[in-house]
Amino acid sequence: MSQNNIPYKTYLEESEMPKQWYNVRADMKNKPAPLLNPATLEPMKFEELRPVFCDELIKQEMDDTTPYFDIPQEILDFYKMYRPSPLVRAYFLEKYLDTPAKIYYKFEGNNTSGSHKLNSAIAQAYYAKRQGLKGVTTETGAGQWGTALSMACSYFDLDCEVYMVKCSYEQKPFRREVMKTYGAAVTPSPSNQTEVGRKILAEFPGTTGSLGCAISEAVEAATSKQGYRYVLGSVLNQVLLHQSVIGLETKTALDKIGEKADIIIGCAGGGSNLGGLISTFMGEKLRGEADYRIIAVEPASCPSLTRGRFAYDFCDTGKVCPLAKMYTLGNGFIPSANHAGGLRYHGMSSVVSQLYEDKLMEAVSVEQTEVFEAAVKFARVEGILPAPESSHAIKVAINEALKCKETGEQKTIVFGLTGTGYFDMVAYQKYNDGEMSDYIPTDEELEKGFATMPVIYK
Amino acid sequence: MSQNNIPYKTYLEESEMPKQWYNVRADMKNKPAPLLNPATLEPMKFEELRPVFCDELIKQEMDDTTPYFDIPQEILDFYKMYRPSPLVRAYFLEKYLDTPAKIYYKFEGNNTSGSHKLNSAIAQAYYAKRQGLKGVTTETGAGQWGTALSMACSYFDLDCEVYMVKCSYEQKPFRREVMKTYGAAVTPSPSNQTEVGRKILAEFPGTTGSLGCAISEAVEAATSKQGYRYVLGSVLNQVLLHQSVIGLETKTALDKIGEKADIIIGCAGGGSNLGGLISTFMGEKLRGEADYRIIAVEPASCPSLTRGRFAYDFCDTGKVCPLAKMYTLGNGFIPSANHAGGLRYHGMSSVVSQLYEDKLMEAVSVEQTEVFEAAVKFARVEGILPAPESSHAIKVAINEALKCKETGEQKTIVFGLTGTGYFDMVAYQKYNDGEMSDYIPTDEELEKGFATMPVIYK
Repeated sequence: MSQNNIPYKTYLEESEMPKQWYNVRADMKNKPAPLLNPATLEPMKFEELRPVFCDELIKQEMDDTTPYFDIPQEILDFYKMYRPSPLVRAYFLEKYLDTPAKIYYKFEGNNTSGSHKLNSAIAQAYYAKRQGLKGVTTETGAGQWGTALSMACSYFDLDCEVYMVKCSYEQKPFRREVMKTYGAAVTPSPSNQTEVGRKILAEFPGTTGSLGCAISEAVEAATSKQGYRYVLGSVLNQVLLHQSVIGLETKTALDKIGEKADIIIGCAGGGSNLGGLISTFMGEKLRGEADYRIIAVEPASCPSLTRGRFAYDFCDTGKVCPLAKMYTLGNGFIPSANHAGGLRYHGMSSVVSQLYEDKLMEAVSVEQTEVFEAAVKFARVEGILPAPESSHAIKVAINEALKCKETGEQKTIVFGLTGTGYFDMVAYQKYNDGEMSDYIPTDEELEKGFATMPVIYK
Repeated sequence: MSQNNIPYKTYLEESEMPKQWYNVRADMKNKPAPLLNPATLEPMKFEELRPVFCDELIKQEMDDTTPYFDIPQEILDFYKMYRPSPLVRAYFLEKYLDTPAKIYYKFEGNNTSGSHKLNSAIAQAYYAKRQGLKGVTTETGAGQWGTALSMACSYFDLDCEVYMVKCSYEQKPFRREVMKTYGAAVTPSPSNQTEVGRKILAEFPGTTGSLGCAISEAVEAATSKQGYRYVLGSVLNQVLLHQSVIGLETKTALDKIGEKADIIIGCAGGGSNLGGLISTFMGEKLRGEADYRIIAVEPASCPSLTRGRFAYDFCDTGKVCPLAKMYTLGNGFIPSANHAGGLRYHGMSSVVSQLYEDKLMEAVSVEQTEVFEAAVKFARVEGILPAPESSHAIKVAINEALKCKETGEQKTIVFGLTGTGYFDMVAYQKYNDGEMSDYIPTDEELEKGFATMPVIYK
């Protein structure tokens, strides 16, 4: 079935794996806005961020001029444990769709964390260890980030405290056990263990939690004791930097098989996968070396890019974090309870937000029933049961491939298959049983979220 | 960390993937004994097996002289979806154990079925489709085989009816959903849907089921309606034939990196993984071309090789199947309820049984608490959360590597990592919570199992 001798799966040799991360900010004319101190509305200084983040990670966070960062040898070694990830030619999907388009996906799910999150988790754990810290705290939504971090912390013998969004904690008990197997402590959020958690619980007793709220708890936990720092699996510049390995590997693999992408598609929650996948391609685009159509896909139930505002907002519900300029639905926004899986953050990476604001990329939103329909089709024809998050990208990749069928164009579509759905079977069960529903927030509901944003005069 | 430029993971090129299955029986001096008709005690004839099995698969089952079978192109295409599987150098485990031994594992878990079972599932579905059948029935224990078969049937648009051992059905609800996502019908066994199920339920109302009992139900379901056949994920000669891709790929990869195995280790339930992994190596051994130490690892709670009898027995509890000569604990044997995961079949592949009887390989049994201890260690240092089944091989690989540490020998150990444990978190949770127990059946208990075997005078 394979044509032109392009294999189903392209794996790089170890020697071809990236030795450096790529920092797309270095090539951005309009840099992402800096984090602001909510009290002074001045850019956060290195010293102000030190109680929260590891030193080296703050440097990476604030550096918008250095294009490449060497990946430390310890991280390169760990990457070899589960990387390179394959670039897969979706021959079966192409045949099923009967499309002239060539479809590729970069599959990041073949590791126990089940997603791309491990790429940044190991980096953040490494810098925490190098700084001599005792442990780290974090939040997790769907559980992929928490699992990744627990694996990374276990590797470097660090304590790992995870605040897990309550509805995921309940829907995904097995993720919790994976984290425990790797030695992490997992707490459903909001919890009674932090001041901010108790406050949120008092205000919204029945809440199923949100990422923004779990972040507040994790930050409080990190800053209220010695030897701990907070780490985050998405949104931050440093995370996108680490995740650039996805895009760098993808580009090298495409070059190796003589392909050039026309359209690059990624799901977008906080932007970690998307930002990583598009990194080097966006760099080429920014430098005028190549052009790509780049599409972010988000859930219609949490539409930060397509219906949010580009403004300064708190990164967390509890308002303990700095302000970030980003597309946001307001820090108080919580997706409807019927929303399955991740991609439930109220905001979007400042890098991705700025690139979108500058019209260097597009964004679309899709509804979850059509996403699961695409997921099941994909599982059946390509043999991989995808994560609900990844399936957003699948849905739009299928849409684009079907457009090619109409026009007869043989475009090359590349999308990010960020992970597997093995721990998302409650959601699949809902879909299988016909009990899955869609929900698009009304304008009025979005207004309520926007009302939680700070008013800043800048 | 990698030495001698041997990469962490060796992937074959598509062009290096096996185009033929290897039939080890062709090189065996003492052939595995034929299946017997329980009524006549004569070898089963092709015509007698036709109501149960697909024609082409019966031919493969009965052929003990043809050394190689071409793999049909449709199956080669499907294999490319998830194969080649990597041969992994366990550098991290070696370092952790501080052993001079070189440890490799062939990792078969990077597909949605989570195990090697897909290798035979797709072959059996293919032959069923080619015969114009409507569907197939089967049993599944831990659920890996059922998942694999549901994927294969979905690919070829065949009905798939799965009888799932009740305790697994209850412990692994998410596997059931994966099967349903691929369109399979899943029934907990014993069930009221078959005569034999009703009979077993009447006799043992509280039973948690067994593979032997689920087989009886699946066979009855297949033979009681038009256009269906029964397929089996292990034990049978045909299954070991298909699974030879594991060993063939392993051998090619070892040759590619200039390594020769000293010890080959595989977990053994019905023998599908073990038989597949050792296939071509055993062939060399049988032909006197090379020598290998080959070790089968089984659970102490279901010790067919180490404590069973080499005799003719029914393949199923309901005694509807032919008799097979094998190491068996008796068709009425059911592992204790505390036994987690697969490897719970009362018998062992006739091929493996004969090779063991002829002292061409060894067998050891291990207890489940030490198996999970090894599993968690492995998960933490190698980054893959292993299936409980696979962890039996890990345990013995570690034991052998530690012996090398004592003696200073730099042996090359190769083991089969058959799958991932993502759907086994109930068992991991038990282990994490200190609630896992061991159970070794007493001689008296084994006698009860032996008493269920038929008395045949041959």
